[in-house]
Amino acid sequence: MTKRSVQFLPEGITVEVDSGTTVLTAAALANIEVKAPCGGDGTCGKCAILLKSGKVKTHVGSVVAAKLQDHGLSLACQTIVDEEDIVVEIPKVSRLNKHQVLLESNVMDKPGDPLREYLLNVWQLRSLLEPEQQDLLYGFPLKPLCRKVHLTLSPPNLQDSIDDANRLILALKKETNCHDITISLSVLKGLPEAIRAEKFKVTVLMLEVNGKGEIVNVEPGHSRRPVYGLAVDIGITTVAAYLLDLEKGRIVDTAGTHNSQARFGDDVISRIVHTVEERDGLQEVHQAIIDTVNYLIRTLLDKQKKVNEKDIWVVMTAGNTTMAHLFLGISPKFIRLEPYIPAANAFPYVTAKELGLRVCPDAKVFSFPAVASYVGGDIVSGTLMTKLGHEEDGMSLLIDIGTNGEMVLGLGDSLVTCSCSAGPAFEGSGISYGMRAMEGAIERVEIEKDTYEVSYSTISNARPVGICGSGLIDCLAKMRKTGIIDRAGKFQTHIVTPRMRVGDNGPEFVFAWQTDADVDSDIVVTEADVKNLLRAKGAVFAGIRTLLQTLGLQVEDIERIFVAGGFGNYLNIRDAIAIGLLPDLPADRYLFIGNSSVKGACMALLSQSAWREAEELAGKMTYIELSVGNMFMDEFISALFIPHTDLSLFPTVEC
Amino acid sequence: MTKRSVQFLPEGITVEVDSGTTVLTAAALANIEVKAPCGGDGTCGKCAILLKSGKVKTHVGSVVAAKLQDHGLSLACQTIVDEEDIVVEIPKVSRLNKHQVLLESNVMDKPGDPLREYLLNVWQLRSLLEPEQQDLLYGFPLKPLCRKVHLTLSPPNLQDSIDDANRLILALKKETNCHDITISLSVLKGLPEAIRAEKFKVTVLMLEVNGKGEIVNVEPGHSRRPVYGLAVDIGITTVAAYLLDLEKGRIVDTAGTHNSQARFGDDVISRIVHTVEERDGLQEVHQAIIDTVNYLIRTLLDKQKKVNEKDIWVVMTAGNTTMAHLFLGISPKFIRLEPYIPAANAFPYVTAKELGLRVCPDAKVFSFPAVASYVGGDIVSGTLMTKLGHEEDGMSLLIDIGTNGEMVLGLGDSLVTCSCSAGPAFEGSGISYGMRAMEGAIERVEIEKDTYEVSYSTISNARPVGICGSGLIDCLAKMRKTGIIDRAGKFQTHIVTPRMRVGDNGPEFVFAWQTDADVDSDIVVTEADVKNLLRAKGAVFAGIRTLLQTLGLQVEDIERIFVAGGFGNYLNIRDAIAIGLLPDLPADRYLFIGNSSVKGACMALLSQSAWREAEELAGKMTYIELSVGNMFMDEFISALFIPHTDLSLFPTVEC
Repeated sequence: MTKRSVQFLPEGITVEVDSGTTVLTAAALANIEVKAPCGGDGTCGKCAILLKSGKVKTHVGSVVAAKLQDHGLSLACQTIVDEEDIVVEIPKVSRLNKHQVLLESNVMDKPGDPLREYLLNVWQLRSLLEPEQQDLLYGFPLKPLCRKVHLTLSPPNLQDSIDDANRLILALKKETNCHDITISLSVLKGLPEAIRAEKFKVTVLMLEVNGKGEIVNVEPGHSRRPVYGLAVDIGITTVAAYLLDLEKGRIVDTAGTHNSQARFGDDVISRIVHTVEERDGLQEVHQAIIDTVNYLIRTLLDKQKKVNEKDIWVVMTAGNTTMAHLFLGISPKFIRLEPYIPAANAFPYVTAKELGLRVCPDAKVFSFPAVASYVGGDIVSGTLMTKLGHEEDGMSLLIDIGTNGEMVLGLGDSLVTCSCSAGPAFEGSGISYGMRAMEGAIERVEIEKDTYEVSYSTISNARPVGICGSGLIDCLAKMRKTGIIDRAGKFQTHIVTPRMRVGDNGPEFVFAWQTDADVDSDIVVTEADVKNLLRAKGAVFAGIRTLLQTLGLQVEDIERIFVAGGFGNYLNIRDAIAIGLLPDLPADRYLFIGNSSVKGACMALLSQSAWREAEELAGKMTYIELSVGNMFMDEFISALFIPHTDLSLFPTVEC
Repeated sequence: MTKRSVQFLPEGITVEVDSGTTVLTAAALANIEVKAPCGGDGTCGKCAILLKSGKVKTHVGSVVAAKLQDHGLSLACQTIVDEEDIVVEIPKVSRLNKHQVLLESNVMDKPGDPLREYLLNVWQLRSLLEPEQQDLLYGFPLKPLCRKVHLTLSPPNLQDSIDDANRLILALKKETNCHDITISLSVLKGLPEAIRAEKFKVTVLMLEVNGKGEIVNVEPGHSRRPVYGLAVDIGITTVAAYLLDLEKGRIVDTAGTHNSQARFGDDVISRIVHTVEERDGLQEVHQAIIDTVNYLIRTLLDKQKKVNEKDIWVVMTAGNTTMAHLFLGISPKFIRLEPYIPAANAFPYVTAKELGLRVCPDAKVFSFPAVASYVGGDIVSGTLMTKLGHEEDGMSLLIDIGTNGEMVLGLGDSLVTCSCSAGPAFEGSGISYGMRAMEGAIERVEIEKDTYEVSYSTISNARPVGICGSGLIDCLAKMRKTGIIDRAGKFQTHIVTPRMRVGDNGPEFVFAWQTDADVDSDIVVTEADVKNLLRAKGAVFAGIRTLLQTLGLQVEDIERIFVAGGFGNYLNIRDAIAIGLLPDLPADRYLFIGNSSVKGACMALLSQSAWREAEELAGKMTYIELSVGNMFMDEFISALFIPHTDLSLFPTVEC
């Protein structure tokens, strides 16, 4: 293979690649993350680049690629490094920016926040826990999966010549009351020296899972080094990591970034396809998420100089079923094919070394158990965090609106769950100017009734670059309210305003002018975008209705709705109800719980009983497959209108 | 470091080494095994070499080295490759020969053999087992640790969408009645493809230990490939491996060789010293035994072309406590220092991959549990094989005479054990012409009463090269009987025969003249040799007496004595009694059981209940530390005479 150099502007980073490599792959090597929602198929048009010098081979297979070519642009995924060294510029609009991922602030620091009040009341935190642990444990006792135990052993003599391992285990059983304790070969190797270095005083690091103890490490003396744990939510788009001091039960710091698997596609399906169709595809997609988690670990350690990576002894991950497979390197192939069977729903824990995670090599890495191919560990984690299935009065519903809409209905002890293919519209994918809740995302809009003038606010008050999920819900609600679209989402093109126009992709409405924005064009919502959003909201609502009907229940029976997911810090419930995404219930029945996946993972790290409950929960949840029977499809079609074909379901919504 | 070449004659093998390397180490690199009982200390004089060309640095630190230098020889361990390339010859007498290790023939093939009759009667083999399994199981049911299970799973559909792992485990539980089954990540990775390749017909390889099942492998279809196991006795001097077909319960083949740790010394102490005093010493001694076992695996596979190494799924090793530590790479440092504490007596099982054994990488490697630092897994294995502790009538004694003399007394359900530092005299070590039971070893001798003429027989009827353990016992008994030595082992130098003379090392008696032998000198037994042998036999007998006295029992109470160990195929009991090595009991109470360590390992591979019993046995055995109190030392001093100071203990022996 001939080697060619590719220089990326404006950074000036140069990488060497084999000729035949795509510019998209070269960019990944240069650590420049380029958008590629379609996974490099050449169909989404998001990875546009500008060739500055050198000759390349390009493949113009799609309409969008042809159109870009007219503007002197080509697609990174369809541009192949060939006979010459090249220089390319990657414009801002084509990039993912790692540092823009927003993290939630701690709800417990916000007196008066409804979630805080709910947690305080329902789980009686005040009485059960120290104040500093209230934000993490919600009623479970603080007894982390991995903890240090100080022991002082009696020295052996000729009359008491029991072996080192047994001497240690007997003392540990007495101290911890755990009666099934094992020791690994790697610990045995250093044991004789370790227990004698400080006159038979030792610190044992013990993992305890379901009453079974494992000696993970033995240090001489009574060590005061802290034990850290890492809770990780592996989302399709973003990955969040919380670093915890396990003994103190405190969050030390948090970090978030994009899932670098994005270069293999925006959704699970394109990533599964990559694992199936490409040689080494599974390894590539697996390594990408390992790299992402390692990046977060590095970020946390750079911020927290006092924390040593060797002191991170346990990692708890929660993600959807495909993410869990990919994280562990298990083929997700059959998740995509009917009847949608995962290799496993429960996963063995492994060592950090086996996965290549840059924490202590002997650290244990756990994965939250899943329920089915499309109801994963992230949902089980959210169910744990909200204590669904422990209701004493009435019914609760957990909805996680992401790429799929997953929901869990808790009624007393029983839990029913389903997943509806909502599509990633509310995460900004498949929408012309859609984006995640990041800096510069339009998150709220108002449209003036007569002039159709628009006012908006963006995250961090930056110049707008796109519209995030909560903004899109606002756009839809306000466009309907002002009559810009009808109940079926059709644009009323007779309305006269410069904002209403017909573009290359049909009718569109301008929410921000290019002059005000930080992108090279006006920010619009098209009729096609609206159709996508209606399908997404229709799927979620149809899912809720199907679950309820399965149990013979009505919307009004829901006492509380927990809304999790990627809407950022804001969601206008009235607007979400107005478009028919959420049931028409009083606002005080709603609670936004943000990233419940990572919060449940924190609980499982800090409390052995929480982890045990998580494992039990996964087995207890009844999965309803929506593709069986016609109920879901009938509901879906009825829900494609604003707010719905059956207006009696939305009595408080003006239509 | 400058590189120098070392050529070895007569082979002509040349290796490159750093200057500063000893010739002993260079020989190991060239795969030439040189005797080094002292572990390279320059004290034993067994590694003599002849420098043919080139200059070296030599260290002449001992009397023996100085004496060799007078004959133009130097010690390989004290000869350092320096400024020149060199050529050296390693004479036959300085070499270990891998191919001379004798293996026992199968006792079950010898109708009329007392051991065979004992086993048939006591364990009622005829009724419990198929004839072909009788030689291995002695009454335990054939249910190997690792076995194949054929399953036909029901294919999933939308109504039955349970995950692959759970589907498999549920079917396996039903089929095997084992209710605690786990699956590893490495099996999960290939599981979806494996179960679908042959329409949901699969063959599961399951490990089952103490009622806990582990899925080790999953193959598509109903596989007919056999499952092999390897039983290995890790002796200090020799290592024996038996390849078993686990399903059929049959020995496929056997192999034996020297433990290549011999280059670090003949006994456990010098090997432990090497691990403590040399940089990477532990790793070197560990790797040496791994290499030895791999050599045996290669030898077996070369002989059995139909057997694929990938089909060897479980390895069961038994060895003394230090050997078990070294095999697993655990530091044995404190075994040598009072109060003699091992890192562990029970060892976790590991994968072949972790140890670098060349069988299936995922194969499980077990180590027999030990009782104490000087009563190891080999003795537990022998106890299992003889079913000590199941006596219904009277008391049994197991004696293993090797480097140490270990013994176990079984009285009903109780088992008492001890180890006496007999020294390796009966293995030929520390005796001028001592050797293991190999080709050319003198194994029987007669001395004519009046002429003092000697007749002898050797193993394989080869020209004599030394005297093995059974030969040495014969020598001692016959020298006493003919008055060549007195009861204290003193040579009666007034006896006139050319065979009686005074050599460099004091009085000696010639058993074979150089003209008849395959070595460069006469084969003699010296007065110093006799003293060594008396100490060895005295220690064994003192151990037996101490054990008996601890329980308030007499020699006559012993109903049966099992003699294990390295005497080869022959031991004259009358002679062993005559010198006071074994108690004066009728010959029919004795049974030679040969390598009981490897036989017990075979049983544990073939029967889950045998392995469970082995684990229980180790915990049940009461260890008596002989260095506590004076009883052993008093007994030892009394036993340094032939047969003993107290002749009433040997009523049938003429003195």
